[in-house]
Amino acid sequence: MPDAASGTAALIDSWRSRTDDTLQRALDTAADGEPRLYAAMRHAVLLGGKRMRPLLVHATAHAFGAPEAAADAASAAVELVHAYSLVHDDLPAMDDDALRRGQPTVHVAFDEATAILAGDALQTLAFALLAEAPLDADVRLAMVAALARAAGANGMVGGQALDIAATGGAQSVDIAALERLHAMKTGALIRAAVALGALAAGVDAPTRSRLDDFADALGLAFQIRDDLLDIEGDSATLGKTAGKDVAQDKATFPALIGIEGSRARLDALAMRMRDALAPFGDAAAPLAALGRRAIERSY
Amino acid sequence: MPDAASGTAALIDSWRSRTDDTLQRALDTAADGEPRLYAAMRHAVLLGGKRMRPLLVHATAHAFGAPEAAADAASAAVELVHAYSLVHDDLPAMDDDALRRGQPTVHVAFDEATAILAGDALQTLAFALLAEAPLDADVRLAMVAALARAAGANGMVGGQALDIAATGGAQSVDIAALERLHAMKTGALIRAAVALGALAAGVDAPTRSRLDDFADALGLAFQIRDDLLDIEGDSATLGKTAGKDVAQDKATFPALIGIEGSRARLDALAMRMRDALAPFGDAAAPLAALGRRAIERSY
Repeated sequence: MPDAASGTAALIDSWRSRTDDTLQRALDTAADGEPRLYAAMRHAVLLGGKRMRPLLVHATAHAFGAPEAAADAASAAVELVHAYSLVHDDLPAMDDDALRRGQPTVHVAFDEATAILAGDALQTLAFALLAEAPLDADVRLAMVAALARAAGANGMVGGQALDIAATGGAQSVDIAALERLHAMKTGALIRAAVALGALAAGVDAPTRSRLDDFADALGLAFQIRDDLLDIEGDSATLGKTAGKDVAQDKATFPALIGIEGSRARLDALAMRMRDALAPFGDAAAPLAALGRRAIERSY
Repeated sequence: MPDAASGTAALIDSWRSRTDDTLQRALDTAADGEPRLYAAMRHAVLLGGKRMRPLLVHATAHAFGAPEAAADAASAAVELVHAYSLVHDDLPAMDDDALRRGQPTVHVAFDEATAILAGDALQTLAFALLAEAPLDADVRLAMVAALARAAGANGMVGGQALDIAATGGAQSVDIAALERLHAMKTGALIRAAVALGALAAGVDAPTRSRLDDFADALGLAFQIRDDLLDIEGDSATLGKTAGKDVAQDKATFPALIGIEGSRARLDALAMRMRDALAPFGDAAAPLAALGRRAIERSY
């Protein structure tokens, strides 16, 4: 079905452009601000990135007939939270990384203080965008609450804290602990992206639950693929430093269940994603394509 | 009027207890989280602090007849944002301070990575609390938007970026630039505290405008007093390191307009605060008392 596939690719490209436009506008209102702070925020957000989370917001909203505009604020907000987390995770006191999205990290291009503040302000901006989106008050509030719970101490930030606690002690982390860590560190925000898309479209509870199952599988698959790429990829393609997991003695899926075991796990997750989306038909084709991309990507 | 004064003091004490209870509960839901992260968050929030911002929320709501419960989430949320900003500002890459609220700073008591993450999660929690508060959807949304705009790149974080840019170059900052810096760095969140109290009470636009004038004067007075205390106070009373401004060659009000000039400025601001609250009668007595306290405090 070349036509359907090219239609899906065109939709995904158009959502990427919409997301970039929304982010650009949100980061362009710098008249009052400190120029260097805004420059750091733009560096963190606008210079690259797969935009997986915003695309998931749009693809989910699309699958249930929401107008594209209903997903704009949410798609930008999840990307802002993701970008802030990368800025802080790359700091010397955390993962101490110099390369991200093929660019110098923010604390390298600017300085540590500016990187801390830029991350802080990107997180704030995410909630400002949601609160001021042109959507029903109840929808906006549900989006703020879902994003905040996903991003906070019991979600993304809690997962990063677990990850730091586990680094250098790969032996002590079993597969259940590793899955829990990643369910918080990367899974929570990916699930929030799909949940926000579902909120934009106003879907019912059983549908939300199915979508959450899809997103949960996608989040885990994304992380397993990330671990494999860290072994198999090179820094130039990845846009970030390859081989770091082994160097830092991090617990990874390949380290715990082997490369073949990790690939088998990916196959099972691909099937789980297909099953979850099966009832939703052609309108969910872009969402399904994003699920496959998480598994097949080379960067 | 000893009865009125003691009534005001009792009210303020009761609001402080309510705030502490709300914060305690918000930081106690740690079952899923990384214990060390939650311990750092509690260290940052529960071990001290004047609670000026939460008290301003409650006193404003009280002045216009709102039930105390309507101000709980907002009072906790502004304190969480304030506390997160202190944790990050104290980091080695920023102000590099070891003492705060009479305790070791979070990165000293824990470590830098944990301090960065604890600050991040405290900010997130502020928005989660507001989004889930038992208030009308429109009120909650207005609170989220007001807090986000006050805390972000055009408010508190922008002011901190300006402050860092100006540190070590006191000569290049004039009084207008210094006022703008503090209007963003401390003023924006103080104004947000009063604005959130006003939202909890549902006051009209002219009243909001008067309250904002009061809060603006209070914010500036608070900072001038802070600058004087840094010269006149000692670390044990302040609970933070005294004498830092001169040591870091920071632009301050005493440096730019002298100690006597700073005191005269405080007198003028006290009058502006009295004028702003004059129409509101006895119900605004606690709010007026908090205004005086900002000027007269010794820590």
